[in-house]
Amino acid sequence: MFGVAVLGFGVVGSGVAEVLSENAEVAEKSAASPLKLKYILDVRDFPGNPFEKLIVRDFAVIENDPEIRVVVETIGGVGVAQEFTRRALSAGKSVVTSNKELVSKFGFELLELAKAKGVNYLFEASVGGGIPILRPITQCLAANKILEVYGILNGTTNHILTAMLKDGASFDDALRDAQTRGYAEQNPSSDIDGTDACRKICILADLAFGRHMNPDWVKTVGIRAVSADDARFASAGGYKIKLLGRAVARDGGKVAAYVAPHLVPGGNLLASVDGVMNAIVVRGNAVGDVMFYGAGAGKLPTASAVVADVIDAVKHDAARKWISWGEGDESMMYDSAALVSRWYARVSAPEGSVKRVFPDAEILGGDTAETGFIVAPQSKKSVEVSLGGFGVLSLFRVID
Amino acid sequence: MFGVAVLGFGVVGSGVAEVLSENAEVAEKSAASPLKLKYILDVRDFPGNPFEKLIVRDFAVIENDPEIRVVVETIGGVGVAQEFTRRALSAGKSVVTSNKELVSKFGFELLELAKAKGVNYLFEASVGGGIPILRPITQCLAANKILEVYGILNGTTNHILTAMLKDGASFDDALRDAQTRGYAEQNPSSDIDGTDACRKICILADLAFGRHMNPDWVKTVGIRAVSADDARFASAGGYKIKLLGRAVARDGGKVAAYVAPHLVPGGNLLASVDGVMNAIVVRGNAVGDVMFYGAGAGKLPTASAVVADVIDAVKHDAARKWISWGEGDESMMYDSAALVSRWYARVSAPEGSVKRVFPDAEILGGDTAETGFIVAPQSKKSVEVSLGGFGVLSLFRVID
Repeated sequence: MFGVAVLGFGVVGSGVAEVLSENAEVAEKSAASPLKLKYILDVRDFPGNPFEKLIVRDFAVIENDPEIRVVVETIGGVGVAQEFTRRALSAGKSVVTSNKELVSKFGFELLELAKAKGVNYLFEASVGGGIPILRPITQCLAANKILEVYGILNGTTNHILTAMLKDGASFDDALRDAQTRGYAEQNPSSDIDGTDACRKICILADLAFGRHMNPDWVKTVGIRAVSADDARFASAGGYKIKLLGRAVARDGGKVAAYVAPHLVPGGNLLASVDGVMNAIVVRGNAVGDVMFYGAGAGKLPTASAVVADVIDAVKHDAARKWISWGEGDESMMYDSAALVSRWYARVSAPEGSVKRVFPDAEILGGDTAETGFIVAPQSKKSVEVSLGGFGVLSLFRVID
Repeated sequence: MFGVAVLGFGVVGSGVAEVLSENAEVAEKSAASPLKLKYILDVRDFPGNPFEKLIVRDFAVIENDPEIRVVVETIGGVGVAQEFTRRALSAGKSVVTSNKELVSKFGFELLELAKAKGVNYLFEASVGGGIPILRPITQCLAANKILEVYGILNGTTNHILTAMLKDGASFDDALRDAQTRGYAEQNPSSDIDGTDACRKICILADLAFGRHMNPDWVKTVGIRAVSADDARFASAGGYKIKLLGRAVARDGGKVAAYVAPHLVPGGNLLASVDGVMNAIVVRGNAVGDVMFYGAGAGKLPTASAVVADVIDAVKHDAARKWISWGEGDESMMYDSAALVSRWYARVSAPEGSVKRVFPDAEILGGDTAETGFIVAPQSKKSVEVSLGGFGVLSLFRVID
């Protein structure tokens, strides 16, 4: 029997309790061992809740109970979540988490601690919610040199951008609608400013390229600057606008990584990923492009990934899983501005002026006051030089 | 050091040798152990080939070499491939294969033999080529009750259907073009009659639902009956035509499974999976729908999946991987004709006659001689009764 403790009884924590209980039969069959949810750590009371009797307030109860072999951390943040993670690993218990902030900032140290203690630190749910992505990268694509990873990593911003392109909504209206539906928080900054996507692309890069990438090193632009005019021009040309996190292997072990809005051509499968869904593309030197798609957030999808990790931790209780990466430093970063791509620009000038500077530009639309257009593949520096004489209202990469 | 032998030096076998050699560094790092390709079994000569010196003709050399820990079977079929697989497993060696016919027909027995010998029998490459799908189902979705698995499982037929819908090609012309490009064989029956897709949906069902499903029990219809008129009507309504394999969990542990052409609405992500690409959707009770997309065939993508299994076999050399399913019998099959869905029909009658029988039908097109239309969700039996008075030219399910 493997005792499991859940830290934090919020959305994900209660989902984990629910999945462990409702899918107990399938989970125990997969784990080849009975799983027992023994404690839930929370400071609040939950009168009448079916899991009420499992609530404890003191982490030491969990830490000192030898029956607890797996601790599920769903507290979030890097404060108490980090402290309890370190204490649990130090006590020889595996830890499973959905905490992308903690993994992206301190994953290297925590994996080293897990290795030293011979236990597992697993975090499939930290990227793409319920979508299987971290394990496929490390196991199924283990024979590949990974060349690039990119994708739609944040459901809130994808919901907002979908509404702007489908319904012609303004950014402010689409954000308010997402808040009303519960997809965006009252303080939506970590979603719409790209922070959440940045943490996720860092974790993907850690696994794909083998060195820890600190989120502070990754240039991150959110979607506040995407306007209804951009949405209209993109739609007119058969493009969608998507916030993508992207990490590209470069020579000498360097990695270019950034988060920014992109125009995505209609023929690219990512263009059809709408609403709160996520999708991640991995490019390997043998397999080519593979894509993983599903619900990137939500109580049960996230819990599905967490409980799969619990099962995996139980199966590998005797033999630690080989998931780890090396230390990183900022010198491993390649300036993403040097990456070549097509570019979409919106400038405060009529089409004629644009055509004089970019005779081959693909004009998406405009009037006497402004023009939206796409230019041939080049670096950011190059396009910025050519745009020097214009009032630039928007400048987004096109992913091809 | 782990010795590896490859059986069969055809497309997949030579791809495996190539990936093992070109990506040796990354593969050995993933395996945490050096891998050595020691033998390639083939009856032919390969003068000048870089792997020429590894060619052996006698399987006993491989069988009796204790250094060989993993045997890669890329011979295909259920004859000599089965014999060598049994002998390798019996000799205590793990076996990795891309052989969907062998796994779909004899997977249960071969997994039991592997279990008895404490070794691994792995076959990620047998479904979806390089797409990670079997391991995600068994591991990442281990906390879910799987409700349904379906997808585009055969690249050749998808290439033909894509050409028919995009270019208005006839089935015969599209097939000839696929043969010219090397996507279809001169005897294309196993692709276009659905046999290949049937084997793959059986393997997916084995893993998803835990009992062996014999391909003989699965009603299989290929794409020979898809006409240019069907393609035209589907396109007019914003649909694509896709050959889908599908397995659905029903009450009492039963499974409905079949292979048939479907109309797929444009908003469904599968509609955007064109050409030789494959995509598989898995529906879990916690995670909802997740989709896996990539190259379903081809030398290097398939080799990518094979070598990932080799790495996994090496990592689990001491502890066998828990992949297995139970015995099955035909009584587990649920009659797929009873599954409810929308239906597309093409009948030799004008729109007026159709409207008299199906007043709410969605008319896709037609003339005085024939009409293409879609009717509301119902079982196959029900729609066949209603269509009784018509000359029915085509009848395909719509997947929603």
